Amino acid sequence: MFARLCLVLLAICCGSVPALAEHYYVRNQNEYAHALKQIAAGDVIILANGEWRDFELVITGEGKPGSPITVISEEAGKVFLTGKSSLRIGGSHILVTGLVFKDGYSPRGEVVSFRRTKQDQAQNSRVTEIVIDGFSKPDRYESDYWVGIYGKNNRFDHNHLVGKTNKGVTLAVRLDSEESRENNHRIDHNYFGPRPVLGSNGGETLRIGTSKYSMFNSNTLVENNIFDRTDGEIEIISSKSGENVFRGNVFLRSRGTLTLRHGDDNLVERNVFLGEGKDYTGGIRVINRNQTVRDNYIEGLRGSGFYGALTVMNGVPNSPVNRYVQVENAQITNNTVLDSSRVTFGAGADEERSAAPIASTFANNLLAGLDTGSFLEVDADVSGIAFSGNFVASGSVHSALPAMHGGEIELERAENGLLYPVDPAFAELGAPRDLRPVKLSQVGVSWYDKPKNGTRFGTSGTVHEVVPGEGGLAGAVAKAADGDIIELQPGVHVVERTIPLDKAITIKGAPALIKGDQPEPTVIKFTRPTLIELREGGNLQLQFLTLDGELAPDSVGNSMIRTTSFPIQSNLVVELDNVTVKNLTVNKSFNVLTLGKSSLADSIVVRNSTFRDISGSVISAAAETEDFGQYNVEYLDILDNEFERVGGPIADVYRGGRDESTFGPFVRIEGNKLDEVGLAATNTNLSSVNLHGVQTANIERNEIAQSAPVRVVHTVGTPKTSLTQNTLSGTPGFVLEELNYEGEHRAIQRGNTFDQDRDQ
Amino acid sequence: MFARLCLVLLAICCGSVPALAEHYYVRNQNEYAHALKQIAAGDVIILANGEWRDFELVITGEGKPGSPITVISEEAGKVFLTGKSSLRIGGSHILVTGLVFKDGYSPRGEVVSFRRTKQDQAQNSRVTEIVIDGFSKPDRYESDYWVGIYGKNNRFDHNHLVGKTNKGVTLAVRLDSEESRENNHRIDHNYFGPRPVLGSNGGETLRIGTSKYSMFNSNTLVENNIFDRTDGEIEIISSKSGENVFRGNVFLRSRGTLTLRHGDDNLVERNVFLGEGKDYTGGIRVINRNQTVRDNYIEGLRGSGFYGALTVMNGVPNSPVNRYVQVENAQITNNTVLDSSRVTFGAGADEERSAAPIASTFANNLLAGLDTGSFLEVDADVSGIAFSGNFVASGSVHSALPAMHGGEIELERAENGLLYPVDPAFAELGAPRDLRPVKLSQVGVSWYDKPKNGTRFGTSGTVHEVVPGEGGLAGAVAKAADGDIIELQPGVHVVERTIPLDKAITIKGAPALIKGDQPEPTVIKFTRPTLIELREGGNLQLQFLTLDGELAPDSVGNSMIRTTSFPIQSNLVVELDNVTVKNLTVNKSFNVLTLGKSSLADSIVVRNSTFRDISGSVISAAAETEDFGQYNVEYLDILDNEFERVGGPIADVYRGGRDESTFGPFVRIEGNKLDEVGLAATNTNLSSVNLHGVQTANIERNEIAQSAPVRVVHTVGTPKTSLTQNTLSGTPGFVLEELNYEGEHRAIQRGNTFDQDRDQ
Repeated sequence: MFARLCLVLLAICCGSVPALAEHYYVRNQNEYAHALKQIAAGDVIILANGEWRDFELVITGEGKPGSPITVISEEAGKVFLTGKSSLRIGGSHILVTGLVFKDGYSPRGEVVSFRRTKQDQAQNSRVTEIVIDGFSKPDRYESDYWVGIYGKNNRFDHNHLVGKTNKGVTLAVRLDSEESRENNHRIDHNYFGPRPVLGSNGGETLRIGTSKYSMFNSNTLVENNIFDRTDGEIEIISSKSGENVFRGNVFLRSRGTLTLRHGDDNLVERNVFLGEGKDYTGGIRVINRNQTVRDNYIEGLRGSGFYGALTVMNGVPNSPVNRYVQVENAQITNNTVLDSSRVTFGAGADEERSAAPIASTFANNLLAGLDTGSFLEVDADVSGIAFSGNFVASGSVHSALPAMHGGEIELERAENGLLYPVDPAFAELGAPRDLRPVKLSQVGVSWYDKPKNGTRFGTSGTVHEVVPGEGGLAGAVAKAADGDIIELQPGVHVVERTIPLDKAITIKGAPALIKGDQPEPTVIKFTRPTLIELREGGNLQLQFLTLDGELAPDSVGNSMIRTTSFPIQSNLVVELDNVTVKNLTVNKSFNVLTLGKSSLADSIVVRNSTFRDISGSVISAAAETEDFGQYNVEYLDILDNEFERVGGPIADVYRGGRDESTFGPFVRIEGNKLDEVGLAATNTNLSSVNLHGVQTANIERNEIAQSAPVRVVHTVGTPKTSLTQNTLSGTPGFVLEELNYEGEHRAIQRGNTFDQDRDQ
Repeated sequence: MFARLCLVLLAICCGSVPALAEHYYVRNQNEYAHALKQIAAGDVIILANGEWRDFELVITGEGKPGSPITVISEEAGKVFLTGKSSLRIGGSHILVTGLVFKDGYSPRGEVVSFRRTKQDQAQNSRVTEIVIDGFSKPDRYESDYWVGIYGKNNRFDHNHLVGKTNKGVTLAVRLDSEESRENNHRIDHNYFGPRPVLGSNGGETLRIGTSKYSMFNSNTLVENNIFDRTDGEIEIISSKSGENVFRGNVFLRSRGTLTLRHGDDNLVERNVFLGEGKDYTGGIRVINRNQTVRDNYIEGLRGSGFYGALTVMNGVPNSPVNRYVQVENAQITNNTVLDSSRVTFGAGADEERSAAPIASTFANNLLAGLDTGSFLEVDADVSGIAFSGNFVASGSVHSALPAMHGGEIELERAENGLLYPVDPAFAELGAPRDLRPVKLSQVGVSWYDKPKNGTRFGTSGTVHEVVPGEGGLAGAVAKAADGDIIELQPGVHVVERTIPLDKAITIKGAPALIKGDQPEPTVIKFTRPTLIELREGGNLQLQFLTLDGELAPDSVGNSMIRTTSFPIQSNLVVELDNVTVKNLTVNKSFNVLTLGKSSLADSIVVRNSTFRDISGSVISAAAETEDFGQYNVEYLDILDNEFERVGGPIADVYRGGRDESTFGPFVRIEGNKLDEVGLAATNTNLSSVNLHGVQTANIERNEIAQSAPVRVVHTVGTPKTSLTQNTLSGTPGFVLEELNYEGEHRAIQRGNTFDQDRDQ
């Protein structure tokens, strides 16, 4: 073991271990505490392999250059800190490596902290090759950082951070004390793995500084990291301090942008953004003075607005520190932007943000947009930006921009995997040819798997058949594994208990029509207030079923499907396809699906289905009533269904407050027929569709008869609502409201047919 | 063992065990299932002592009279069904005894069910000497019955049921099938122990029938049970069927009433109600036809309105089955009502309930009310009631009543513990002398303790001293036991993690002034968004402390104290006495105390304290936004405090919806000084006090300056709001609203001083 250890230390420290160094092999927290008392420069504490439960590891002391104090696992990846555990580092020249945090969460504000106390901040210390895997607080709205970097000259490298589900930045560099500014920290070769949509502010992956201290320089280097599906919120990286360098990082299918939010004199170079056409993938957003953005490669991004491939913001004249400092002397050169939705100059221009960019350069960039939509967009005066040497291969160019070279250009993929012009005449255009994007194998640790792409339903290949009767379905779900399919045979299945669901399960009946046959339907009846309770890890797909609520008892708040009242860390997916739901009428507020507090669905899809005689809502996603910008569903699709006699709205989606750091919720309600919907006395807002604070809503080709109105309330930001080609009869028109915007409601209305006569 | 078993069986069955009976001793669920396949009349399955986890016990078969099929514990009280367990009984002549359900909950709709399936209902079967202790679903709003009785001729006796915390009737007799009507069930000698306030509909202890089947007779006998602190909701017993008998039951300190809600021909006799002056203790409420209420003894009740000692309701002409059938031929005779608040005739008379009682008798009752308030109350025409032979010893008599004998009367407590007139001339008046109230030792089981009265704080006698610095307080709380006191020495205590609290703890500093000294204050500063998180079993008392939020981080939704986001079964108590709270300002909605979803406080008391510079609310009890009649606090007292620059309301209490089955919430806000309160932009209702749906509110002697208005919204029922002797300066008056009542707001306003000039 010691041989391996010395090799590791040699490899890591690039120095020799002094002859007198002590090695303490410790097997439990008492032995660790005992070793800690005696430790000196060059000494090594070796944590025995195994699980260390509820271990608040603290290491401090005075190491020396080349002779650090080290805490190392007996074998890399075989020491697990679980339960309520954390790591705090004080002193100087400390090295920690080889630990895995999993199956628990920090009881403190950080999992890994580069300070022991406010006074004892780490200096010249390093954390390398550690893993933090799903070590999130159980309540998604209870915040922490996974890593807090304080002090000076610290390095955080080759670490693996995956699956933060609770609020709070994944890695924060703090400047809240004088000794932590101009810090020369290095953050490199880390794997920032998938971070799911948080549905709230506080989902950034990396933040350097805060607005309060943004006038100070941080001098932090962020280099050669990979950000893989870091979708927490609108900022992937939020730079809120001066003189940081972001170099050689790779952003894979990540929603949001690298934003120079506060602070001047930052450098963003040689980064690679690969969106692969995923929604809301963004690039670089520029605010403040003396920002340099050069030699970056951007491909396949779909973000627009503030979240395009390149976005130069308008500023606020004499901006307060927490608003938008005017862009001055931005140097944006030799970037490649391909197959992307948007580049914007003067973004966010309004009464307050009236200061256009000045003394700036936009030169030698290679730009290719999509065929649809506007590509190079101008929202303000661009006379303060010098444009030269840019080439626009495709996509529209706003008329306010100076003429740019343009036209078709032949590109080929080079050995580094990136696209470059074939024609050598364009050698000086766009990102340089010597980019060597860091590979997944070069970041994080080699001894811990990086997560693959996952689909949820039907992946196991196992099918369970269930015959009609009592108890079969609940039993089959209990036995099934993640990704299994449960096939119900035609007939009536009675479920006498609420089915708890903590895995991805497909429950399907026989398709209603196969080659002209009219088989007996597959019916589920349930005798509890809820048929299925979604728990941690629960995902549900229902197909070819009739769900009948006639046996449900009268209990206020019945819901055929609902989330557990315990918080859920994982994001849910629920799909209803070709189902009939009926007779949810035993009391006045019987919903089809209810998403409760502290739960977020990535996606709810309801398609080709029929809902008849429902006293409550079909989809209730309105539990986050505190107006903190939180919400319950990211994507809600209600497509090609029929709704008849539904008391509540078919979609009730609420996102309150003035926070602007999420992309969602998104709602599509298309091709549905509604008849007598939303008229129940208990339907507080008296609406057939009730959308409050939805960011993007598309309501089209619906036939709405004898129903309550469609209600859309816009809150903050630039919500997009489109109401097109709907036919309304016996139904009041749309009820539209703007809460934070003066003037007409901004919803687009086109091609709708109204007939206000309720008797027709 | 078998000797003991035979004795038990002899004792229980009062018959002999046939010679051929088999005894199956089973040690696990497999052995049980195997035994069950072979069982016949007279056989006995003996469950081995120990824990049976996740055991859904099903017993069915055809026993015979005197030769039942028996499931019995090896030793009474030593067989524990834990986890997700339940008991279902089908067949006939089944006997189950000796089991304890604890540390878990039923995964089904019932813990004990007298039916195996809808088709297989129990007949002639008996459950005796079982215990159900705290076997409640974790979410208080997920409903179940603990006991559901179906079928015919079943007996449920000598059982112990304590601590149901989730929604749903404790014991329900169902009439929803033909074979379960005219059932002749016996429910006797059970101990219905403390059931805490539910804060929602669904907290009844016993219900027989439902409105839907209330035209059928149940013929159920409820005899010699004790109801001890069964405070779940307004109904202790809800009789919703015909020909039931309630005889010889004792109600101890129980809020609510025995209500003859639906169905005719019931008999209520020889019951004893002892309120001991506790709030909202009630007696018997009469609705429908041919009800007999005789020979009952009632003492020390404090309920009024519908929940007085005796209440005769007005009915609805041709009432639908779910409303109020007119009282006809009620015979209310020879009852004793002493030291009680109210007896009402024609209660609830209004436009709908316009049918007064007819053909009824109220005779030979002994009545003694309190000196204050109205005692014998009349809300409607009483000409349909024949009054005779009644005696009113004290308390006011409504002028619409015929003259009654009255005057002082000497009472003495007889051997049975009840009061009777000394003068033999009154021998025929009131309850009979031969009442023998059932004793605690005669109900439930002898081998399981009945819960004592409990106080929560400072009961252990253990005091932990903590010196100022970091980490001491959190460590002391972690080590402390329920009822301990933590004494902080003067100085600054820094808390770096949220303290989870799952026991009753007092945290106190040094009193600010002792004999003229002015000691250093005891200050707590905390660095997390929350200082204390209340969890299951958590109760908190803070005294003589300064709590300073200046180190708290900016995280939306900060709250100095809050409930966990996991549901809490136990009701909370929080008391703040002589504390100063300041500097909760790091963001816009920093509360002092926040009660979250699925939590209920029995009592929140804030007294003699100071709150300065708080951006959010002081007490936020407004998480139950679904308008299901649920709420977060039963009693809220805010007394003699000073509030300065508080952004939100000092009290934000919400109870929405139209449910009428709870007594609370109650709010007292008295003797406080408010200065610049409720003016934050984030304070949605712009109020300094915000009460929605509070049932009883007393707001008096407050000095309110430069603040937002006091807002009181009345919802359903007969809310009582009193606004008296408040002084308002620079503050708009009261904002009062009635949601379900036509006409002027019903709040009493008296002696308030207004000065609308905000500049004064």
